[in-house]
Order: sequence, then structure tokens, then C-alpha cells
Amino acid sequence: MAASPHVPFVDPESAVFRAHEGGKLGVHATKPLEGSEDLALLYTPGVAEVSLAIAADPALSRRYTARGNTVAVISDGTAVLGLGDIGPLGAMPVMEGKAVLFKHFAGIDAVPVVMETGSVDELVDAIVRIAPSYGGINLEDISAPRCFDIEEQLKDRLDIPVFHDDQHGTAIVVLAGLLNAVRVLDRHLADLRVVVSGAGAAGVAVTRLLQRAGVRDVVVCDSRGIIAPSRADLTGHKALLAASTNPRALHGRIGVALAGADVYVGVSGGTVPETEVASMAPESVVFALANPTPEVHPDVARRHAAIVATGRSDFPNQINNVLAFPGIFRGALDAGATRITEAMKLAAARAIADLVTNPTPERIVPSVFEPGVADAVAAAVRRLALTPDGGRPARG
Amino acid sequence: MAASPHVPFVDPESAVFRAHEGGKLGVHATKPLEGSEDLALLYTPGVAEVSLAIAADPALSRRYTARGNTVAVISDGTAVLGLGDIGPLGAMPVMEGKAVLFKHFAGIDAVPVVMETGSVDELVDAIVRIAPSYGGINLEDISAPRCFDIEEQLKDRLDIPVFHDDQHGTAIVVLAGLLNAVRVLDRHLADLRVVVSGAGAAGVAVTRLLQRAGVRDVVVCDSRGIIAPSRADLTGHKALLAASTNPRALHGRIGVALAGADVYVGVSGGTVPETEVASMAPESVVFALANPTPEVHPDVARRHAAIVATGRSDFPNQINNVLAFPGIFRGALDAGATRITEAMKLAAARAIADLVTNPTPERIVPSVFEPGVADAVAAAVRRLALTPDGGRPARG
Repeated sequence: MAASPHVPFVDPESAVFRAHEGGKLGVHATKPLEGSEDLALLYTPGVAEVSLAIAADPALSRRYTARGNTVAVISDGTAVLGLGDIGPLGAMPVMEGKAVLFKHFAGIDAVPVVMETGSVDELVDAIVRIAPSYGGINLEDISAPRCFDIEEQLKDRLDIPVFHDDQHGTAIVVLAGLLNAVRVLDRHLADLRVVVSGAGAAGVAVTRLLQRAGVRDVVVCDSRGIIAPSRADLTGHKALLAASTNPRALHGRIGVALAGADVYVGVSGGTVPETEVASMAPESVVFALANPTPEVHPDVARRHAAIVATGRSDFPNQINNVLAFPGIFRGALDAGATRITEAMKLAAARAIADLVTNPTPERIVPSVFEPGVADAVAAAVRRLALTPDGGRPARG
Repeated sequence: MAASPHVPFVDPESAVFRAHEGGKLGVHATKPLEGSEDLALLYTPGVAEVSLAIAADPALSRRYTARGNTVAVISDGTAVLGLGDIGPLGAMPVMEGKAVLFKHFAGIDAVPVVMETGSVDELVDAIVRIAPSYGGINLEDISAPRCFDIEEQLKDRLDIPVFHDDQHGTAIVVLAGLLNAVRVLDRHLADLRVVVSGAGAAGVAVTRLLQRAGVRDVVVCDSRGIIAPSRADLTGHKALLAASTNPRALHGRIGVALAGADVYVGVSGGTVPETEVASMAPESVVFALANPTPEVHPDVARRHAAIVATGRSDFPNQINNVLAFPGIFRGALDAGATRITEAMKLAAARAIADLVTNPTPERIVPSVFEPGVADAVAAAVRRLALTPDGGRPARG
């Protein structure tokens, strides 16, 4: 475990620590247990009938156990929020919070599973072994590039939905916001020059989903600058990015990419100087999503950009994963989907965007507590899950 | 997965299947989430403070996450009830039922974890990896002899209580019953001849706990008869049993052991003919615990034995693990115990026995729904966990 950046003062009387006293989750029985008769139904001998029925027909487990409505929120604590590798115990409050959101926004029973970290194979093997307990798996706060391999291997080996929210949740809500930004600006995705700052979990997933949605010109930057085939230091997923992005073969610092760009998506935790925002094309769009400190202050960005979004609730246009993941899993569980397809992610982004009937520069996404968001996303996912072609992109 | 003995008819309208519709467990938030302010406390940005505090001082996780009150109920489904190897999905209704009992009797938030089976090492590695999620681990319905190695390895590698209930829960309640049986009969444990029928998880644990409580003469039998050093087919835990039991060096069928015995403990699922019960010593004690069909019908046993107990709720003296495990974990969690010691098991058995103020042949253990059982067991466990010597047997 890496050293934490600082050891905070624990004030048990503070609002945050009081809100965490005893944890944030509980388990309850959904059926009455009042005496021996109930016991004989819920436990032995009655339970044997249900166990044998499920052993004979495993599909019955979705109906006769809580599994059909249960999602595991799994993390090894290697990339928690912006805090870095703080380990499984440190990650637990975040996973409990995530589980609270699953319940609040989609009625899903989510259980945190925090794991000692290890190799990709070790983590995958452990998750596969416990997977029969759950109807879906939400991966969370696992460091890149391990998170890519872990998710891919789990998708190959499991027949339940596996979804790394730091990747796809972020990507879906960014796309939703961008869909409404181009509506406001009367532009088209295919004509945009987009710069993604950050080549970790979120940056990679945002890039891929924007491309799938029709964006042709994406330039991805990491801390060393533009990701391009000319760079000798690229391996793995960054080499793949170099091959599939940056059509104008730019190279150099991020400022080179930003000059004349239409869209900036910051998921890096870095900073962007005002001069570089000013160098973007007219009517530009800035998503400065680092939390709690955006890459550029929204008030500064707004001097130059037509539309500005952040990850914060105290500025307009909060790009928050909670707009996506509850509905994604609700729809997948309801439909018995075995995976979250690319088409479902696109449909989820469109569903979120469409909830804003009259988008403006100050309102390109719904607010987090707006009713109906999870329902709309779930309906879109469910529709695709139930199509005969398994939800492959028809209009994508 | 072995074939199930029969494929039951699924009647969705039957009481048992209706009691299982949608499963028996739910997850809920224990703190209010009504708007952005709550969100900022329970999730980002507030949660970061708690995560950092726990990363710096892992002991805080017991206070500021639900982990301190959470027990995993873990099974690979290889020995479910009397049904055998029905796999993890088939095991789930039993594990959910167990979780319901944890909550009802001890207020513990228990979460089922059913696992694809594998080698001892594979199962242990997976459980160790997810262990940071829990305050304790209840192993359940894992086949012998694997269950012995799995529990031992987990106890070595983890600093939270690990308790295989099929072993120790059964042993504790059997000992509780026997303590009151000798009170009723005015006998002493040290003078008893005890026959244990069954050398699986329960038989081994019952034997060890009875010995630790002071029983000197235990003869264990498996399906081939008395376990004795003369047998050439014994390996592993049965070879250990042969070396540590059977002081009169009996050999042959179980009937040889029963002739003149004072106590029979059946945890085998086999049968005992009435003639062999009749061959026991006067004032004998018969625990016929196979469920739902006792090794000998209690009415038949009662013709010859002074005291008869079964696993069933419709006869007197129900030997039911639920008298032990909720209080065991309640006490261990409350005290922050890192393991369940032998002294705690003995103390738990005494606490259960002592709840029957005036034991009679028809009442040697409390009934399952009698109030105060879990509290009394928890208090006994807590007291030992908090003693300076870590709960080593002082008066054991």
C-alpha cells in the first residue's frame, strides 16, 4: 500500500464521521420469521426443495434467491477516487457509498467486496470463484492498465454483466453531455476535434465510446503529451490508442492538440492554463472532470468556452456516473442480460441526453436527483437486451 | 456437480416457493440520502476523509464501515444439508436462510458468498483475498475432509474469526445438551462411554469438543465401523481420530461400541437398530441428529434410553446450531476477537446449558426461539475474548 498523501484528523463529531459511524449498509430479511413454521419454510427442511430445484435448473436461482437483484461492488483499492492505492479497507467506505447509490437510484441490493490486490490472474480467479453469488459485477477503483485486462477476462469467463464504472460510467455520461452540447451548438459529432486528457481507465473508455458514437478526430494526451505512434515509450493500451486516434498525427505537448480543438475532456487530474483554453476553436466545449479540483476552474473556462461541465455539484452540468450505472444494471438485471454491450452504452447515453428536453449551455445533462433517470436508462438497456440480435449496434 | 437425488416439482404457489420468491435477503442504507448534502457526506467528496483515515489506521474500519457487523456465510455447495454436492447456486437458498438467522437472532448483517468449488488452496486463496470485506467468516456446507484443511488454513492466514458451523456449531450444542443430560442423570463426563457415529465435519468436531470438556472414552464410527488403529484404510483426519480416541481398543461394527455405552451421538445419516439401542448401558443418552430422519426414531429410542434428543423441532430436545452460532459471532464481533478459541466454544456450551435452570429428560437445551440465548452465548464469548490471556481455557 502506498503511503497516503496525508493522515487526516479523525473528528468523530464531524458530520462526515458521524455519517459513517457503524457503516452505511445493513442486511435485512425480506420474509417474516416469527416462529418454527416460518423457520421450516425459510430454512430446513423447506429450503431443501428450493435448493434441489435450483440445482436441477440453475436459471431458477434468479427467481428464488436474492441473486437476481444483487450486484457486487468490487475493488482492490488500488485507485480509489483521487487518493490512489489506499488498500481494500480504505476503499470500503467508497464501495459502501456506491452500494447506497445502487439502492437509492435503482432498488438494487449491492454488496461491497474489497479484495487484497494481486496479479490480474489472481484477482480474476477470485472474482470468478465468487461470481455465482451475484447477478452482476460492478468493478470500481482498480488501477489502470490492470483494470482493462481484469474486465476483459471477466467478461470472457462469466455469463453475468461485468461493468467497470470508472471506465464506462464516465464514458456514458460524457457522451450524454456531448450529445446535448452539439445540439445546443448545432454541430455534429463527426466534425468535432476532441482532446481527451488522461489515458487511464476513464480516458480510454471515453475515447472508445466517443469514437463508436461517431467522433472521428480524437487526440489523447497523457502526462507526457500527445499519444502518437512517434512516441517510443508506449506499450499496451497506449500503443493501441496511438494506432486508433490522432488522425492528424499531432505530436508534442497537450497545448498542440488544444489549439483549434472543439472539445476538451479532462479526466486526468492535471491542469490546463487559461491560455490553452483560449487557444481552442470558437464555441468550444470544456469538460473539466477532475474532482474535487477541475483541470481549469469553470469560471475561467467559461470566459472562452461556450459550454463548460465539471464533476462538481456546485456548478452547472455535473458529469456524474450516478446518472448511468444504476439504470444500466437495473435494465441488465431485469432483462437477464449476460453482458453490457457497446450498443447498450450508446443507448444509455442517448437516454440520458434525451431527458433534457431543451438543452442549454447551462444544462446539457439532467441533475443527479432528477426523477426518472435510472428508469429511462434501464428501459433503453432492457430494450437492447431483449432484441433478437443481442443488442448489437443497429444505428450506432 | 453430482446428480441430485431427484428433481423436485416446482410449484410456484406452494408455501415454500412463495417464501423464496425474489430471495430472502435485501440490502439497505442505514443513513439518509435525501439530496446533494447527504450525497456529499456519504459519497464524494466527504467519503475521502473516512477512506484516508482508515488507510492510515485500519482499526477504524470496524467503526466507520459496516464490516464490524458483517459476517460472510461462505459455501462451495459440496455438502449442502443432507443433499450432497449440489453446487453454489443450489446452496444459495440455504446460505440466505442462514443469513436471515444471523440477523434475527443476533442482529448481524450476514452476506452469502457461494463459490465455484476447487482445490483447498484455490478456495482458501479466494477467501483470503475477499476477507477484508468482512468482520468474520462462517463456513457452511463444505465437504469433509476438505473442510478441516480449509478452516485451519484460513485461521492461520486471517485475523478475523473463522468458524465452520457444521463442525463447531453442532459440537457446541451437543456438548450443551450433554452437560444437562449428566446433570439430570447425576453423572460425570469423565465417566461416560460415548459413541459418535459419523466421522465427517460434525463427528470430528463433536469428538474433539467432548474430549476437551472432559470425556475420556469416545469411540468414533464411520460407515465401515469403529475407527481404530487396526484399520488399514485410515488416512488424514481419521488416522488422527484412531490415535486419539477408542481407549479400550475396540474394533468391528458400531454395535460392538454401543454395547454398554452411555451416550450415542448420531451425526451420520445412517440408522441404528432398536436392538443396539437396547444394548446400551442403563440410563443411556441418545442424540439421533440426522435430519429429517433421525438414525433411530425418538419414540423407539425412548423405550431404552433415559434421554433422547434429535435435530427436529417436533420432538423434545432439539439440537439446533442456531442456539450457538448467532451468539458466538455476536460476542466475537463485539469484542473484536481475532479467532474463536476452544475456550470460547466450551464457554458457549456452558452458557447454553445454564439457560435451562431445571433440566429434565424432556428439556436439556433451550428451545430455538427462547429469548436471551444469543445474548448469553455472546456474553460468554465476549468475556473470554477480553481476558488478558486471550481466552485460553482456564477452567476447561
